[in-house]
Amino acid sequence: MTLPPAEGTSFLAPADAQARVGATEALRELYREWGYERIEVPALERLDDSHPRSGKSFKLVDRDGGVLALRSDFTPALTNFVRANHPAVAAGDGVPLRLSYDGLVWHAIDPELARGREFTQVGVELIGVSNARADAELIHLARESVRVVGLTPRVEVGNPAFVSRLFDAAGVGAEGRSDLADAIDRKDQSEVTALVERLGLRGKAADAIVAVPDLYGDAGIIDTALKLAPDGPTVEAAKRLAGVVEEFEDASELMLDFGLARRLSYYTGVTFRVFTFDFGQPLLGGGRYDGALLPYAAGFALGLGRLLAAANGSLQRQSATAELVVSLDDAAARRLRQEGYRVARALATEVAAARAEALTLGARYLQTATELIDLTKGRA
Amino acid sequence: MTLPPAEGTSFLAPADAQARVGATEALRELYREWGYERIEVPALERLDDSHPRSGKSFKLVDRDGGVLALRSDFTPALTNFVRANHPAVAAGDGVPLRLSYDGLVWHAIDPELARGREFTQVGVELIGVSNARADAELIHLARESVRVVGLTPRVEVGNPAFVSRLFDAAGVGAEGRSDLADAIDRKDQSEVTALVERLGLRGKAADAIVAVPDLYGDAGIIDTALKLAPDGPTVEAAKRLAGVVEEFEDASELMLDFGLARRLSYYTGVTFRVFTFDFGQPLLGGGRYDGALLPYAAGFALGLGRLLAAANGSLQRQSATAELVVSLDDAAARRLRQEGYRVARALATEVAAARAEALTLGARYLQTATELIDLTKGRA
Repeated sequence: MTLPPAEGTSFLAPADAQARVGATEALRELYREWGYERIEVPALERLDDSHPRSGKSFKLVDRDGGVLALRSDFTPALTNFVRANHPAVAAGDGVPLRLSYDGLVWHAIDPELARGREFTQVGVELIGVSNARADAELIHLARESVRVVGLTPRVEVGNPAFVSRLFDAAGVGAEGRSDLADAIDRKDQSEVTALVERLGLRGKAADAIVAVPDLYGDAGIIDTALKLAPDGPTVEAAKRLAGVVEEFEDASELMLDFGLARRLSYYTGVTFRVFTFDFGQPLLGGGRYDGALLPYAAGFALGLGRLLAAANGSLQRQSATAELVVSLDDAAARRLRQEGYRVARALATEVAAARAEALTLGARYLQTATELIDLTKGRA
Repeated sequence: MTLPPAEGTSFLAPADAQARVGATEALRELYREWGYERIEVPALERLDDSHPRSGKSFKLVDRDGGVLALRSDFTPALTNFVRANHPAVAAGDGVPLRLSYDGLVWHAIDPELARGREFTQVGVELIGVSNARADAELIHLARESVRVVGLTPRVEVGNPAFVSRLFDAAGVGAEGRSDLADAIDRKDQSEVTALVERLGLRGKAADAIVAVPDLYGDAGIIDTALKLAPDGPTVEAAKRLAGVVEEFEDASELMLDFGLARRLSYYTGVTFRVFTFDFGQPLLGGGRYDGALLPYAAGFALGLGRLLAAANGSLQRQSATAELVVSLDDAAARRLRQEGYRVARALATEVAAARAEALTLGARYLQTATELIDLTKGRA
């Protein structure tokens, strides 16, 4: 009986598996060079109902009746790691911690609606510090993460705290925030205006809420945001974004958006997404979530499959470059491997049969007991 | 709320995670050099009741009511990959296929009885060929897999087909085989004798069954096995093991055991385990299972956690060797990374605060806007 892969999962043939290894190693090296330490956390977790994505988790019943879940996100597990191993950082004290990770996550979503339900996720977290310099470091690494696979990054940066502070200043109640934030995030100006009317908002803060969907562009937009800001806390939120921009030698690659209001309940500070040209979906997303799980924390994650789909072969495929030899001689095979060749032992013992074996495997050379034969010569 | 890892799972701190990466990369490189191609198969599978270990699987109910399982073994998934992508090989024809893999497996066992329930498994399969030369290649790679992490391998090789053919020759019925095989495998001579009596076995085959628990040692034991063999099929089984030994330049590292009778129902040919000194459990196990899932197939798997526990630090830990620099200057940081340093950006902006940050991170150097300061000098 042949079983196809479960819905939303797939086999990866050698070339694709090798591309994935190449990208993973390049990302690990990037983060290591920047002082991030890679940790591993379990894929099989206790179910944590307080986790915002617990509804998306695959759940299992353990033998003792306890409920387990497949990892759907790395951040909660990393938080537990920090609490267990770095209690000072978890208490908002201690030296900042740079962590990186990569591994599988699973989303129990309808396979018809998604490209997959089993993904490889890669990311970093910078924990125990909250300032523009830390935000800028993450945005820089996010941009380099896309560049390392040969793509040109386009970075969109916002600070949802700006919209939150505008809501505070305008006196928007808890029940009105979600719809208004959604409309702002979609840049649906007429819906924003209608909601502001309906909520009876007035004054400078209300004017700023109506204007904020248009508040995007290069660094020049910061002055406009500062002028629109109705009070001190809103000015502070704008200044934090200005502080991030100042950390970049060339800020022209950043696209600022003061109307970014996604997941307001989770992200508390600067957020960002990285895109590339001719690929509609974001390749990477992240931001600051101080107070959500830890006092000071920010990070980002990328889906390796999507990144490679966008890169689509711009990455070097190492296995394709090393020449394959089929060898009848074990000592010669050993020497050739040391020289960097891939060498498959002939499973035949006669030269003629080994030559046929080599040709079927697509090998370039046949090593006999006495000579290395270039098989492409005979065919020319 | 802090959740400890689920029972039978654990966090891996940076040094251990790095050791695991180092071992995985070394094993991948070994298999690649030998012409094996790495593939990836899903961790989330359809439940396959015909799988011999399906009782050990963690099971999940999918949204459509279908039953899924967490991968408990790579071989069934690789078999499905071969059937889907290499139908000729799956039909017992075509050119041999060398595949390698690494990834997580889960066993839903009582955590009190096991070191863990979530493991990283690494292995290879050589599919579509069945001869002594193929068996020897796998045994060689099994030995090198242990050597690559700095351990001295001790390889135990057997051929359960020898015991099966003895049972055929002696006329042991299906109901008597399991107990007798177990007693032989445990080398429990008196139990073997008692069972042979009880089953009323007589003649040369019965004598060989009583003698087989003692039939282990170096290559010299082969002649004894050939003399004891009561018929042609049993002689063939002994000769297959002799053929494997002939493939080795130095067979003195192999320990032959004609009484290996583990999992007789699964393994059909040569099987092997690799041990190291001062570590009681096998590090790696494998063998030939022609006809079980595919017409011709053999392979081995190792548990990475156990291999590293045995290696216990003999492996180079790369992250410990690259010096850490804390830098206040982004351009200098870029140059230092190119030279191979790990460089964490200072999150402080003043030299005094950055020096404190560097000392707490255990960094050796502090890079300011003007100079690279060796922090160990001041402390001497």
